[in-house]
Amino acid sequence: MKKTDKYESIVELARRRGFFWQSYEIYGGLSGFIDLGPFGVGLKRKIENKWRRFFKNKVEMVEIGTPIITPFDVFEASGHIENFNDPMIECSSCKRKYRADHILNDYEIPETESLSLEEIEQEVKKNKIKCSECDGELSKPINFQTMFQTTIGPYSESVGYGRPETAQGMFINFKRINETMRGKFPIAIMQIGPALRNEISPRQGPIRLREFTLMEFEFFFDPENQHCPKLNDVEKEQVNILHEKIKLKNKDNSDQLTIKTALDKGIILNEWLAYFMALSQRFVLELGIPLDKQRFNEKLSNERAHYSSQTFDHEVLLERWGWVEVAGHALRSNYDLSKHMEKTGVDLSFFMQHEKPIIQKKKIVKPVKDVLSSKFGKIDKIIQLLQNVDAENIEKGFKEKGEYKIGDYLIHPDDIKIDSKEIKETGRRFIPNVAEPSFGLERLVYATLEYAYSKNEDRVVLKIPKDITPIQAIILPLVSKDKLPDIANKIYGRLTEEGFDVIYDEVGSIGRRYARADEIGIPIAITIDYQTIEDGTVTLRDRDSWEQKRVKIEEVQTSLKF
Amino acid sequence: MKKTDKYESIVELARRRGFFWQSYEIYGGLSGFIDLGPFGVGLKRKIENKWRRFFKNKVEMVEIGTPIITPFDVFEASGHIENFNDPMIECSSCKRKYRADHILNDYEIPETESLSLEEIEQEVKKNKIKCSECDGELSKPINFQTMFQTTIGPYSESVGYGRPETAQGMFINFKRINETMRGKFPIAIMQIGPALRNEISPRQGPIRLREFTLMEFEFFFDPENQHCPKLNDVEKEQVNILHEKIKLKNKDNSDQLTIKTALDKGIILNEWLAYFMALSQRFVLELGIPLDKQRFNEKLSNERAHYSSQTFDHEVLLERWGWVEVAGHALRSNYDLSKHMEKTGVDLSFFMQHEKPIIQKKKIVKPVKDVLSSKFGKIDKIIQLLQNVDAENIEKGFKEKGEYKIGDYLIHPDDIKIDSKEIKETGRRFIPNVAEPSFGLERLVYATLEYAYSKNEDRVVLKIPKDITPIQAIILPLVSKDKLPDIANKIYGRLTEEGFDVIYDEVGSIGRRYARADEIGIPIAITIDYQTIEDGTVTLRDRDSWEQKRVKIEEVQTSLKF
Repeated sequence: MKKTDKYESIVELARRRGFFWQSYEIYGGLSGFIDLGPFGVGLKRKIENKWRRFFKNKVEMVEIGTPIITPFDVFEASGHIENFNDPMIECSSCKRKYRADHILNDYEIPETESLSLEEIEQEVKKNKIKCSECDGELSKPINFQTMFQTTIGPYSESVGYGRPETAQGMFINFKRINETMRGKFPIAIMQIGPALRNEISPRQGPIRLREFTLMEFEFFFDPENQHCPKLNDVEKEQVNILHEKIKLKNKDNSDQLTIKTALDKGIILNEWLAYFMALSQRFVLELGIPLDKQRFNEKLSNERAHYSSQTFDHEVLLERWGWVEVAGHALRSNYDLSKHMEKTGVDLSFFMQHEKPIIQKKKIVKPVKDVLSSKFGKIDKIIQLLQNVDAENIEKGFKEKGEYKIGDYLIHPDDIKIDSKEIKETGRRFIPNVAEPSFGLERLVYATLEYAYSKNEDRVVLKIPKDITPIQAIILPLVSKDKLPDIANKIYGRLTEEGFDVIYDEVGSIGRRYARADEIGIPIAITIDYQTIEDGTVTLRDRDSWEQKRVKIEEVQTSLKF
Repeated sequence: MKKTDKYESIVELARRRGFFWQSYEIYGGLSGFIDLGPFGVGLKRKIENKWRRFFKNKVEMVEIGTPIITPFDVFEASGHIENFNDPMIECSSCKRKYRADHILNDYEIPETESLSLEEIEQEVKKNKIKCSECDGELSKPINFQTMFQTTIGPYSESVGYGRPETAQGMFINFKRINETMRGKFPIAIMQIGPALRNEISPRQGPIRLREFTLMEFEFFFDPENQHCPKLNDVEKEQVNILHEKIKLKNKDNSDQLTIKTALDKGIILNEWLAYFMALSQRFVLELGIPLDKQRFNEKLSNERAHYSSQTFDHEVLLERWGWVEVAGHALRSNYDLSKHMEKTGVDLSFFMQHEKPIIQKKKIVKPVKDVLSSKFGKIDKIIQLLQNVDAENIEKGFKEKGEYKIGDYLIHPDDIKIDSKEIKETGRRFIPNVAEPSFGLERLVYATLEYAYSKNEDRVVLKIPKDITPIQAIILPLVSKDKLPDIANKIYGRLTEEGFDVIYDEVGSIGRRYARADEIGIPIAITIDYQTIEDGTVTLRDRDSWEQKRVKIEEVQTSLKF
């Protein structure tokens, strides 16, 4: 039995005050889905806007919006059809289905995420694990595809899925974006939107959702020039990394390193990835989560997604759930672009122009037609073959063996001439590599609430950072008579017009209204009283210090800019 | 063959400049899905934010966010399982499937939307319609359910759908929201988010999408008090209405009426609905679509959605597509709340407190137990029945027939006494009625682009209203040398920090850069030239007039507030 923890307090507050609650409540609730109430929607949007501004101001970035519903072919190319699944185990008696690695977790078996189906089966046997509902025998584990499947249009063969990540929309549009941006490079493509994952049996409220919001960007860079010129903005920053070397020793204390050291030691493999990790840490700090409650957990090769060559989960420490991923930072190499190129035949490479054309001497092969035709008869085919062969290879062959085999033809030095020619190379073509930061928005909302949750004199105060509170001020007429509501309403109208998010409340004693405002995390309460009628001043009460000061009505706006 | 029209020009511009294009291009494209490029995402967000502000400032409103994926039970209760479908017809030879009413449209048969399956079959026969692909015979039309179906979790019986409207999320949360808002009434609940409709064969680009964004609110009001106190803000406004009476006469010229006249004549059935229609018209006007290109098309009873007692489609005139719905205004009565109450047993009624308790004398029935038991023996059941019966009815029965039948019991005046008692009624309980405005965001984006598309001296200028352009200014160093880029970058940095959406461009001649900016619809071009170095002024060029003026760098921001 767990004691009442912050999670319970927050879930209770969230439901009562309108941040979030389980979806389909009146239908008995549905695991893995939450509804956001008025303040939840507000907080989510503030974090989203902050994120967009935060990263856009640092990296050249364009935002796109692509569909949730994705046809089979795209996810076949990207490897999701094959790899996007979780191990599932069924009770052979009551037919209840479980996520197999989570069942093992309950028995405190470590690192269950990386076990194969066979290993899971062995662990189940070894630990004599039974169905927790009916004590029945558990079946052989199988892979369950965790994408929501549907049919697009009226033809049943036209299979589609709800996207489990927004990333593929960015990869398949690389060429189009590249054209509209007239070849800017390196470039990041960003997307914020819903993602769907058909979890087997989600049990962690807002932490493990079947429908949630991702904020992602794919940063496309030149594999031959992986230098990040902005690195010196962050290289002295300390990060906590639980890296591969520590994990392989079965330890779980993260290393505290500077970004520079982590790069120098080869712990982070790419400068851009390191730069984004440092920004990610700063961003999460600005949501109110201290640095010592953050860490980067490197995924071992058997824990990584199929597309990744290195991944760090950016985790925050939560009271009930322990270390929880709020962002993932992955090197996706050129995996996705290459796969889509293969599948579609569309060239998704990038042509980078040299600043000046490079002029190179290049050896070319010239067939001596007379000799060739006297030797082979019809020479169309051999001439074709000679056009595509590397002259250097032929020279090498002649040198070593005195002959060279090309297709079915064996040629000798007399058959051809090797000339050299000046070639003007205007640029270089390559498939970009990708670094991907990906943030889970609902988890950030929850983590922000958990770290904001605090008490002053036994009363709950939600100390959400003031620049992201859903509501910036609450307007309170001291009593609901004697024209105080009129003045209050005027202030409400003006602040609303100016684009502030404010609410008006005249119900209950002023003390109770302050308490409600504190619970919602409203930074400033504006009280209109009898003195307001006399001198045009109002009281501003600060959420965190509970201090009050009087200001002129005209100065209220300035106090709301956090 | 259609001539090149605005639609084609816009689609070409949208693809080339990065507003929108068909999704999954490199996979051959997928009908009914579009990708939004950088400027499309920007324009969409600006319209969304404008909409939220516009309506929130006029109606007391809270915003929520609920899932796309919805379990079967919810849509069974709401009537979608039964009613959300389109008639489909298949070629019995090539097996191609068509939306049956659209096929009839191609043959210029009017009002096909309201035809039954039998009527469609008759029309197909009468007009000898064949498969347009292979000239094969068409099958009997059937209903095709146009929701995307999926399975939630690992159990195949757990059927779910992508929501075709966001509305149900608001209805099933009415009670919860009511509690968090401490009983405010009337109240509107708003939601903006994705909706999915599995169209049979969408053929109209961004106009008919399988995945799109809805902006909706449900306004809950008292059926016994349908007065809208804000009506006088709009009652003199003229609206074009193609109402039922006109349509039943087979005419298609809309009436121009004031809101007040439309209400007085009973053309619009509810004041709130009328108020929202007037606001809707103003909003669309502010997107640049003139009043004479807008109308409200009343749906006939056989065209209306199953839940609606009156619906007006708010339509705008588009060059290629004719009158196209951009918003729907529906009276949903208490249909949805009642259905969810029935299905779940949860009380979704609203208890409205009277300002003062009302004290009423009420007649109550008192059984005379001795008499009853001597007559009927066991009297538990008759006493139970008497508790729920209306005393007035019994009195009436006695008066008319000298007896009254209740259940299986026949009672007479001696069996009971009728007393009167003072009852304190503190309020009244009712199921709220609902007026629903619902806007299609992608269609508004497209309509905005079509009305913004214009030419100055043969060059395309996208005259998007300046307060919703995706980009507010473009910053152009005249040449990319002599420190002009440095100054330009500083201005770019400062404006970005201030939250403006600006871009920087140094590629190409200044004339070509102006032309590009006009095509994207950027209201102001800020040019940095040699004079900037001397006196700290820059040139501001206006998109619409092409006029230029010089201002101090510090004054630039003021010029960007539209």
